[in-house]
Amino acid sequence: MTVLAYGTPAADTPLSQMEIIRRAPGPHDVQIDILFCGICHSDLHQARSEWAGTLYPCVPGHEIVGRVAAVGGHVGSHKVGDLVGVGCMVDSCQHCADCDEGLENYCDGMVGTYNGPSPDAPGHTLGGYSQQVVVHERYVLKVSHPEEQLAAVAPLLCAGITTYSPLRHWQAGPGKKVGVVGIGGLGHMGLKLAHAMGAHVVAFTTSESKRADALALGADEVVVSRHPEEMAAHAKSFDFILNTVAAPHDLDPFLGLLKRDGTMTLVGAPASPHPSPNVFGFITKRRSLAGSMIGGIPETQEMLDFCAEHGITSDIEMIRAEQIETAYERMLKGDVKYRFVMDIATMGQ
Amino acid sequence: MTVLAYGTPAADTPLSQMEIIRRAPGPHDVQIDILFCGICHSDLHQARSEWAGTLYPCVPGHEIVGRVAAVGGHVGSHKVGDLVGVGCMVDSCQHCADCDEGLENYCDGMVGTYNGPSPDAPGHTLGGYSQQVVVHERYVLKVSHPEEQLAAVAPLLCAGITTYSPLRHWQAGPGKKVGVVGIGGLGHMGLKLAHAMGAHVVAFTTSESKRADALALGADEVVVSRHPEEMAAHAKSFDFILNTVAAPHDLDPFLGLLKRDGTMTLVGAPASPHPSPNVFGFITKRRSLAGSMIGGIPETQEMLDFCAEHGITSDIEMIRAEQIETAYERMLKGDVKYRFVMDIATMGQ
Repeated sequence: MTVLAYGTPAADTPLSQMEIIRRAPGPHDVQIDILFCGICHSDLHQARSEWAGTLYPCVPGHEIVGRVAAVGGHVGSHKVGDLVGVGCMVDSCQHCADCDEGLENYCDGMVGTYNGPSPDAPGHTLGGYSQQVVVHERYVLKVSHPEEQLAAVAPLLCAGITTYSPLRHWQAGPGKKVGVVGIGGLGHMGLKLAHAMGAHVVAFTTSESKRADALALGADEVVVSRHPEEMAAHAKSFDFILNTVAAPHDLDPFLGLLKRDGTMTLVGAPASPHPSPNVFGFITKRRSLAGSMIGGIPETQEMLDFCAEHGITSDIEMIRAEQIETAYERMLKGDVKYRFVMDIATMGQ
Repeated sequence: MTVLAYGTPAADTPLSQMEIIRRAPGPHDVQIDILFCGICHSDLHQARSEWAGTLYPCVPGHEIVGRVAAVGGHVGSHKVGDLVGVGCMVDSCQHCADCDEGLENYCDGMVGTYNGPSPDAPGHTLGGYSQQVVVHERYVLKVSHPEEQLAAVAPLLCAGITTYSPLRHWQAGPGKKVGVVGIGGLGHMGLKLAHAMGAHVVAFTTSESKRADALALGADEVVVSRHPEEMAAHAKSFDFILNTVAAPHDLDPFLGLLKRDGTMTLVGAPASPHPSPNVFGFITKRRSLAGSMIGGIPETQEMLDFCAEHGITSDIEMIRAEQIETAYERMLKGDVKYRFVMDIATMGQ
């Protein structure tokens, strides 16, 4: 069937309305009427071919919330009318060790929600800036938040799980001192989640102006990382630091804040490398630098349930579909608190 | 009391014989007649002031094996005539969390066996290139190897524990695939230890000529890291990689060999930084880069006992005290299999 979408035929062309084809649901497929789609920085990178390998036409969007419109004959886990979410992936090999452990996000055969290989036209996946999507049931999440929060739930499918997964993996919780570096789309979720997990949360920002916001989002303390004396007061004290900053920056001052056996985990990937971290910072306290990428399907469901239980959503600004390019430009300037979400109902109006 | 030592009064002066003063043993001290002292690359760095902060006169040496000559009144754990070892530290604060956990090596108050702060003359510690040393009993290890192996035991006190500690911490053992990068003083111990722990061990060397040696030392497989096709055959397969190379090198090819959740741990600290590792290498498989520094006193004892039980010593070349500068020059060229050990009995002859 043909549906409306927002996408682009080329890297140098602004996104505009287009028609795309979605497959008829197979036995294990869920057909979803999309209600809202969050706007992730990755969308912009992919649409403008700032990462290698963008396939055109490109329809971005992997923070999807919608309602089930139809299900295939073998679908047992979702039914027509259910509120559901789809995140960064719509398929994986389903039989490797990663898939077996519910860490489909690390499967070598993971298929992204857009720009991934697909037997469907046009030969690659098309994302959530569209009226409908058809997804294998395994990659469809249940949403139990109240209906009026659905727009603010959408960013949980990427920004939420990208921060939740490492916080859980490195055991943020009561008695742990956890840092969150950067207060943007990812970082603001990191603050909310780490706070709800019961950790003592310290926000790091380069901007004095974000101090009050960070406290409101869940930080117990805020450190302006440009102030060496503020940084020094926290030396060797953190169990875990979640670093959400994708821009290249000096990692050493943050590594120095970790206690023995502490870990700093990167969830942003810079276009050019960070300065090389000093090896002495690692060896003198057996510290680790790690990375983490979104999360598996079971933990994405766990995250959504955790957020519903704790009343957690993203702070968002809603846009109409045709405002997408303006939203991209503002996102590039950090001018959003803290995530744009596209109201899919505005498409074609 | 006055004893002979080999040391230097200045960075640009060769080591030569000198007299130094050792304190009379206090209530908790052990006075040790040194038999052998291993030659570590750190000794050279410190003697030549290649690291900041060398205090002169400098007497290096922190791979010490000897016999107890006298003990203080409150010493319960060692007695005259015992064979003992002393490694990289001779004191620490003894009351912090690290010390309480037996990880004195990570204590902020850890005192190195040489170049550390000391109330004794000349105001800093003097190391094991000397006839005697006096050390608090806590930092004195029991040696249970046969007497004829003592020279080859000495390097266990630094090279042994530096590799044993991370192998244990990151759980090298049966069912684990473990890499050891670099076949030198540290790496050759890493191969022996990882093999004895029951891991499947892969040695990485830049030198085809070390292939046979690596197999003899305990490697199940050897990869010449300059050969991309050999490296590719091991992609995403390692649980743990112990990287012993102190020279700056590209870490990315090795990070790419780690499976999901794998860790590469650095035990060498380069004088200039490694090229900055690619962040995608971390996030796509939740990999970690870590560091480790020697080991705590309890695990050093555990390592010595493990080595005695498994018949493990270092491969060494014995030198006379006056050959130390020649040994340094050969060490710089990698011309030693695999550790020089100074026969302290040659001092003053």
